[in-house]
This record gives sequence, C-alpha cells and structure tokens, in this order.
Amino acid sequence: MRVIQKKLEFATRGSPQFINITDSLAKALKETGLKQGSMTVFVVGSTAGLTTFEFEPGLEKDIEEFYEKLIPSSKHYHHDETWGDANGYSHLRAALTGPSLVIPFGEGGLLLGTWQQVVLAEFDNRPRKRQVIVQVTGE
Amino acid sequence: MRVIQKKLEFATRGSPQFINITDSLAKALKETGLKQGSMTVFVVGSTAGLTTFEFEPGLEKDIEEFYEKLIPSSKHYHHDETWGDANGYSHLRAALTGPSLVIPFGEGGLLLGTWQQVVLAEFDNRPRKRQVIVQVTGE
Amino acid sequence: MRVIQKKLEFATRGSPQFINITDSLAKALKETGLKQGSMTVFVVGSTAGLTTFEFEPGLEKDIEEFYEKLIPSSKHYHHDETWGDANGYSHLRAALTGPSLVIPFGEGGLLLGTWQQVVLAEFDNRPRKRQVIVQVTGE
Repeated sequence: MRVIQKKLEFATRGSPQFINITDSLAKALKETGLKQGSMTVFVVGSTAGLTTFEFEPGLEKDIEEFYEKLIPSSKHYHHDETWGDANGYSHLRAALTGPSLVIPFGEGGLLLGTWQQVVLAEFDNRPRKRQVIVQVTGE
Repeated sequence: MRVIQKKLEFATRGSPQFINITDSLAKALKETGLKQGSMTVFVVGSTAGLTTFEFEPGLEKDIEEFYEKLIPSSKHYHHDETWGDANGYSHLRAALTGPSLVIPFGEGGLLLGTWQQVVLAEFDNRPRKRQVIVQVTGE
Repeated sequence: MRVIQKKLEFATRGSPQFINITDSLAKALKETGLKQGSMTVFVVGSTAGLTTFEFEPGLEKDIEEFYEKLIPSSKHYHHDETWGDANGYSHLRAALTGPSLVIPFGEGGLLLGTWQQVVLAEFDNRPRKRQVIVQVTGE
C-alpha cells in the first residue's frame, strides 16, 4: 500500500468555464505506477468545484444555463458587501457542487464510464491559477 | 493496511428510480474481513448518482418531485440535439448529485446513521445494467 | 501507511445552522502525527451535510437563503406524513448536500484554500448531538 500525492495546476479564464481534466488525471495515475486503489481529487479554493459529466458542447451549455438559472450571476448577494468582489454567486455554486471526488482505479486506469469525464468547474469571475490535488492510494 | 475492490451490478428500470444499496454494501464489506477504514462507493456512468437519505416511500416521492421541479424531464436540453436520446435531464441530475461517496466503517459495520441509507439514483430514461465500484481500504 | 479513526461531536441548535469545523479537523489531524495522505470526513445522520465555503456572515446568509428558496421549510412534504416530525425539508437539503468529503493533507496541514472552510450544515429542525467521523489515511 502506498500513498502518492501530486499537484496539478490549471490556468482558468473565469466563470463560466468547465475544464475536462480526465486526461491529466489519467497521466498522473500512470506516473504513480500503482495498479489498484482510489484517487482522491480535490480543488483548492472556495469558488470552484468538481463533478463528472459527459463533456460535449451541448451538455456544457445546459450545465452553464442550469447554474445561471439556479444561482444567477446578476443577482446581488450579501457576500458581495463583505469584499466588494461581486462573486457571491461563485461561492454559492462552489458550495453546492463540492470540492472533492473519489475515483477508483484498476484494470489499467480510472474506472470511469465511457462518457463520464472529470470536470473542473471554474465559478470565479476572474482568471485563476487553480490547484487540484491528486492523492493516489493503492498498490 | 489493505485495499480490496469489488464490483456490484444493479439492473435498473430507468428514471426516476432510487435503489437502497446499503445491504449490498454491508455484505461487500463483511466479505473483505476488514475491521476499520473507509469504503469508497462510485457509480460508473454519467446518468446516475449516489447519495444518502432515509429510504421511505414519502421521502422517495419528495426527492423525485424535487428533481422533477429543478431539472424537468419534459424540457428540451441542448444535449438532446447531440445524440437524440432525450436524456439531457438525466445528465444534469447526475452532475448535480455526484458519482462518489466515502463511508467510514468500524465497530462491526458501516458508520451510517440509523435512518441513513446509501441510495443509487438512476436518472437515465431507460433500463441500465449499472456498475457500482466498491473500494474498501483499511485494516 | 496507517489508518486512524476519530469521532467528533458537535451540539447543534437546529436548522438553519452552519458550523465551521475546520479547526476541529486540523486538531484531529495533528493528533494522528501523520504527514501526508487523505482525511475522510463523514456526518452521521440523514438531516445534515458537509461542504466547504468561505465562512463569513454574508455568505452564510446567502447560503441560508439559497436553501430556503430551493427547498422551503414552510412547504409540506410527503415525508412529514410518515413520521409527523415536519422535517421533510431537512432530509431533502441533506440528500442534496451529501454526507462526505475527502480532503488531502501534506506540508503540515489540510490542503484547503485560504478562504475555504469545512462546514457542517445542520438542517434538522431541532437540536442534535451530531457525530462527525474523521478517518485519516496516510503516512
């Protein structure tokens, strides 16, 4: 049993932006040489989230519209008064989406579905250098 | 420390369907013989999700109505144009719910609350053979 | 590689209440003496959840209003007929939020963002003794 930790960095351009990070995760897994176990993926920060979906332009647009309707970017939030950075909606979307995922691996790779990609959701209203921590535990 | 991986399969009939998989997980845990650690549960595919709730018919109905109101199955989604399979709502519900859970175990079983069941949510609009990966890490 | 399990307990006053448990988690991690790995956090019960957000009063109010709008506490739910305890909304909010998080650690602590706190969300409509299981796996 070993545990190996890696940091990935993604330059984002600001909300709404969804980044397919599946290939980066697969590469990080391969570098560990581990054959079976779990990969924890965690995005650092309070204005981004992680989930999985089929990464195709139509669905990307659906998801963008879903968040916009549920937590509008144009609405005023109490949080905006605290810092004056007008990204209250970014924080709400991130809290709803969650910062962590755990993905099992075996049989030569991550055990994702064919149409299931791991997606980093940048909800902040400005470009960020986004850190994603990958923790591989297994043997 | 050991890591043991199992695959469970559930035949689903299509959305909306919630399946209480707590007993299957408890059985899988018992078979490993491990006494303390964490169980990662991951559903393969982009039209299903995992969560925990009290599995009783009233709440099941509430949750069904909640998803239907938030992400209506009758609405047209951009994703539907991509493949023509009219399950855009299934993908959105799955992305919102998330594919993974981690549940600690000890003292002879999963450390769930008395009324807290692990539920596989089938959001797809047709029957599926749904794979759930169970990864038990512990000693 | 070791796995160490701890139980934390929080006395809550009932919904809506958000509790910043970051310091308690950091203390639990320090006590293990482990230097690199992952911490699983799991809340026992079906009327509470875990997420991360910037813990400041403005955002706390935004999140409270978000849940109230999405899943109103004044609405009648089918679940309320089952037990007569009128907390159907608590269960729905908990199922949406999810009971588990995984947070990597290294470099002397939990690898959270500066403004990213771990928050226990009490959704139940009455005071509870809330158990949070912390599972630290690493070396």
